[in-house]
Amino acid sequence: MSDGYNVAVVGATGAVGTKLIEMLEQTNLPLKKVKLLASKRSAGRKLLFKGEGLFVEELTAESFDDVDIAFFSAGGSTSQQFASEAVKRGTVVIDNTSQFRMDKDTPLVVPEVNKEALKKHQGIVANPNCSTIQMMVALEPIKKLVGIDRVIVSTYQAVSGAGARAVEEVKQQAKETLDGELPENLTTGILPVASDKKHYPQAFNALAQIDEFAEEGYTKEEWKMVNETKKIMADNQIKISATCVRVPVITSHSESIYIETKEETSVAQLRETLEKADGVVVEDDPSQQIYPQALNSVGKKDTFVGRIRRDLDIDNGYHLWVVSDNLLKGAAWNSVQIAETLHEMDLVHV
Amino acid sequence: MSDGYNVAVVGATGAVGTKLIEMLEQTNLPLKKVKLLASKRSAGRKLLFKGEGLFVEELTAESFDDVDIAFFSAGGSTSQQFASEAVKRGTVVIDNTSQFRMDKDTPLVVPEVNKEALKKHQGIVANPNCSTIQMMVALEPIKKLVGIDRVIVSTYQAVSGAGARAVEEVKQQAKETLDGELPENLTTGILPVASDKKHYPQAFNALAQIDEFAEEGYTKEEWKMVNETKKIMADNQIKISATCVRVPVITSHSESIYIETKEETSVAQLRETLEKADGVVVEDDPSQQIYPQALNSVGKKDTFVGRIRRDLDIDNGYHLWVVSDNLLKGAAWNSVQIAETLHEMDLVHV
Repeated sequence: MSDGYNVAVVGATGAVGTKLIEMLEQTNLPLKKVKLLASKRSAGRKLLFKGEGLFVEELTAESFDDVDIAFFSAGGSTSQQFASEAVKRGTVVIDNTSQFRMDKDTPLVVPEVNKEALKKHQGIVANPNCSTIQMMVALEPIKKLVGIDRVIVSTYQAVSGAGARAVEEVKQQAKETLDGELPENLTTGILPVASDKKHYPQAFNALAQIDEFAEEGYTKEEWKMVNETKKIMADNQIKISATCVRVPVITSHSESIYIETKEETSVAQLRETLEKADGVVVEDDPSQQIYPQALNSVGKKDTFVGRIRRDLDIDNGYHLWVVSDNLLKGAAWNSVQIAETLHEMDLVHV
Repeated sequence: MSDGYNVAVVGATGAVGTKLIEMLEQTNLPLKKVKLLASKRSAGRKLLFKGEGLFVEELTAESFDDVDIAFFSAGGSTSQQFASEAVKRGTVVIDNTSQFRMDKDTPLVVPEVNKEALKKHQGIVANPNCSTIQMMVALEPIKKLVGIDRVIVSTYQAVSGAGARAVEEVKQQAKETLDGELPENLTTGILPVASDKKHYPQAFNALAQIDEFAEEGYTKEEWKMVNETKKIMADNQIKISATCVRVPVITSHSESIYIETKEETSVAQLRETLEKADGVVVEDDPSQQIYPQALNSVGKKDTFVGRIRRDLDIDNGYHLWVVSDNLLKGAAWNSVQIAETLHEMDLVHV
């Protein structure tokens, strides 16, 4: 095991990059040096790390010459272009984009669920999609207990999942609305999907589109939840469908999850199991109006589970309400947790 | 058939009352006189009806002496106190509260679905819960086509469903948030449920509580969707579970609905059926990013259906995204439509 790593953050000035820096300030991973990388446009900016000013450097292949672990969060094309350059130089890449997630040689890891998959990494480890991660944290303990036959999930996803510019756009739209502007006159241009043809107001609106549309009328985000779940749980038989919706929440995704377990269980047993599970905090007391809330989970690393109740008509059917900070457990914290786990398992240098 | 009715709006100054007046301005129901009723506190206010100023009168039992049809939307306790007084005086009450919905002698009506039930009214007709109505409009044509075995719905409900004060509260919270206020310092006091013990910020938050908690960990709103669906569809066998969530949208509820049909169908057949259905507008073209949106449906009487797609794993499983103006089809328009239907069926005076 190394006694200290040189780590790099690629996309250091973005919504997730900023959180990666925060998580690296808190990690118990031994760090020698932190290098902040971004596009030429952002190079030269100074960001604080543990009170020390660090200059953002322009990302090049050579940036990785002395880097042990690199966190990529600058979009799929940057990962495609530079991840192999990093690996070539002996760097372990922890990639937060969708670029390598379904690559059969790339482990897709939620440490609470499938850290053993890290053993097979060949230089790149993929961080799953934010909406998938929190669902995995909540469902894996149930799967271990009684198995899971099927999942139907409807998401209430936060705007920060679409990046810092999307957050600014929604705040601008909200301000315009409060100032009396009509919906058709609101500033648009980024949401629901920056690269897509049409843009709609997100403030005071629910948009049933996250990422572009793909096969069978599902969006790519919905397909990610399906395909990544099967890969992370190593279960191609699990039945899963998703409806992914963006709501005007800045940070933390909420999910309405219906499951059917393979074996019989009870609300009490599910609650007890989730209370003991890694990374899960049960917030579930209807008599006291206690249930997970997006606003309450911002800045926390846990996944919050509540509204645990049995389906009224189906044996082994249960409903859950699952909330987590999409920038932390959904992105930066899961990535840093992967790095910590690689270190603990002595898998940084292979 | 009458050639003109005296109608009254009880709760004329509220969020739904205001919309009832708008809908009465547009109705083809023959009107002789419109009487606006409210609590003593609001009496004396002047509201416009077709350009004419009408004074709001204080609600008393005698208010109904010359009234043919009264729309009640001033809370359950007002309906409890005054509906029977109105009926005693020969008035047909169309009640927008939950007071009489599950009463076995009270028809619970969505005209597109079960107008025949009006024939059995004994003076009171109940308007269903907003989140139930739009689901019924979307599902009834499918039920007629191939039957429906089960429904799982997760809602994205608008703040105006909790009344005008809730709307003001959310706008205030949004303004405070944009001004940099922390969540714990936001003005609260009404949402999620004015009468409940605790109040939470709704701006930039998703709250998985609408109405108070009841049996089995479900809220009353969730029970309403279950019980009202069974009553309106006259089907006690239908399996249905709901998760009701309030999101920071001012007007129009969105719903992620999963159904299993009894007989085989297809996305194309469902789309074709819905396109022909009364009160339904299909907005469903992923290639052009066309899907129902809360903001787009405000002020419209229709129920918008899109994202129609088959479940990936289950035979006869389909997903829909259903959006409608909760104050119009969810409340005021459905009520006025009930009145129009009573008139057409010659059921106002029984």
